[in-house]
Amino acid sequence: MTGEAAFHARLRALASDPAARGLLDDTALLDGLVLTTDTMVEGVHYLASDPPESVGWKLAAVNLSDLAAKGATPAGCLLNYALSGDAAWDAAFLEGLGEALARYAMPLLGGDTVAGTRSYSLTAIGCATNPPSRSGARAGDALWVTGTIGDAGAGLAIARGGDGPAELLERYRRPVPRLAEGIALAPHVQAMMDVSDGLLLDASRMAEASGLAVAADLALIPLSRHVSDPLAAASAGDDYELLFAAPPDFEPPVPATQVGIFAAGAGLGLSQRGVPIPLPASLGFLHHG
Amino acid sequence: MTGEAAFHARLRALASDPAARGLLDDTALLDGLVLTTDTMVEGVHYLASDPPESVGWKLAAVNLSDLAAKGATPAGCLLNYALSGDAAWDAAFLEGLGEALARYAMPLLGGDTVAGTRSYSLTAIGCATNPPSRSGARAGDALWVTGTIGDAGAGLAIARGGDGPAELLERYRRPVPRLAEGIALAPHVQAMMDVSDGLLLDASRMAEASGLAVAADLALIPLSRHVSDPLAAASAGDDYELLFAAPPDFEPPVPATQVGIFAAGAGLGLSQRGVPIPLPASLGFLHHG
Repeated sequence: MTGEAAFHARLRALASDPAARGLLDDTALLDGLVLTTDTMVEGVHYLASDPPESVGWKLAAVNLSDLAAKGATPAGCLLNYALSGDAAWDAAFLEGLGEALARYAMPLLGGDTVAGTRSYSLTAIGCATNPPSRSGARAGDALWVTGTIGDAGAGLAIARGGDGPAELLERYRRPVPRLAEGIALAPHVQAMMDVSDGLLLDASRMAEASGLAVAADLALIPLSRHVSDPLAAASAGDDYELLFAAPPDFEPPVPATQVGIFAAGAGLGLSQRGVPIPLPASLGFLHHG
Repeated sequence: MTGEAAFHARLRALASDPAARGLLDDTALLDGLVLTTDTMVEGVHYLASDPPESVGWKLAAVNLSDLAAKGATPAGCLLNYALSGDAAWDAAFLEGLGEALARYAMPLLGGDTVAGTRSYSLTAIGCATNPPSRSGARAGDALWVTGTIGDAGAGLAIARGGDGPAELLERYRRPVPRLAEGIALAPHVQAMMDVSDGLLLDASRMAEASGLAVAADLALIPLSRHVSDPLAAASAGDDYELLFAAPPDFEPPVPATQVGIFAAGAGLGLSQRGVPIPLPASLGFLHHG
């Protein structure tokens, strides 16, 4: 067991309360409230060259995306902010954060500012009745995803100096949390989570949490017109679309695409138009340390 | 206005929801829940040489102390943890954190781990009915404080290489949140907050939030047998005692000492046995950036 794996095992031992859901979900539940927290560190979760407005927006959006996956309505948030030493940068960060909070009606309730490291956390709180977990998929359920996959990954390549349309860069820098979609889907799905680290990686996590195997077909991955490599798209991060399990004949109330199926067993299987293909070396983007 | 003051002005503009209490309190209120969050950064809020167990304990204790000041019962917490790269350090941190969480019955509900900077945040949630704010003091109320003041400040000097009893070092490294005291006091006080940054600084904040002046007498500051300088004690940080406003004839249900009085006006006045003395250059320990 690596140091990090040992640390997470110890964390899970501490989090024995049922509300913690064994730390296997992205959110905790307390008295009808959905709680989630995410940290962004410079050089790990965003590039030093990213505009500060988009870093602030993204901190709100990644937390809102976790609420979306529970079908929750935002109720408030707390900010942990490390003053950067650059007042213009800090002001621009707050402008982007404030824009996202206003857009999705999540009031800032409190927080803490410190000196030092470029690290920012947000804790978001939402209200939901019967939020779906990531562990409720059943054998025979289909795996569905909203929107298109891989745009943010292509946008990251542009942010790193590549060429490509501004639209993709925007998908990387200003992800849109699927709150309305989450609220519409939550009562009908067996399991739901957001796609933050790559569709293949997150699908395998949903299967593992549900005690099942999942098979995905690359030919089914929904791609925008700017993206052509489904394997790269399905193993890139930062999509913030919703991934959910529902019966194959389910008619989703929002645009969504069936990309795979759950079955008894364990692990992820990959095919292209039904022909099995080997898994890539990396299923997703592990930026969680 | 400094960059930091401008940043806080912008933050307050964002936090227009009544639940945010104008960001003038240490906690936010949402549906009967009390929310607070605090970050600790190496070299700012703790020494690199502090034992990791005590850093973990302290992260829990400083947040529990904010709940104590609202008379709240801990309900749960979320952890933002930056893996240090030293597995033994991380394990020891969690041991200290877990000890405090078990002692004060605050379950760990979720969180986030990242790589990188040595920065740790905890968001704590408690339940309280009618929690006191820091802004409710009235002219004529007395200023009271629980326990003794200055022990942690003396302990910090020992941690930095000075001489002194282990007892003081322990007060700095393992502060005790006054949860039972807060629950006993909350229904009876006009205003309450914890003393995290120094009694004089925190008393002046309570007076400012209440739109009043406050006068403190150094001869009244409760000191343990190891501490002899009341001015140094009252302007050192990390006490985590409770500071509250109540009528002068109030009979506190827990050990507490009257150290001053509120009056119409503004600002902090200091005296020693009734003789006015000048304010020190620093009223407390500003480690919040």
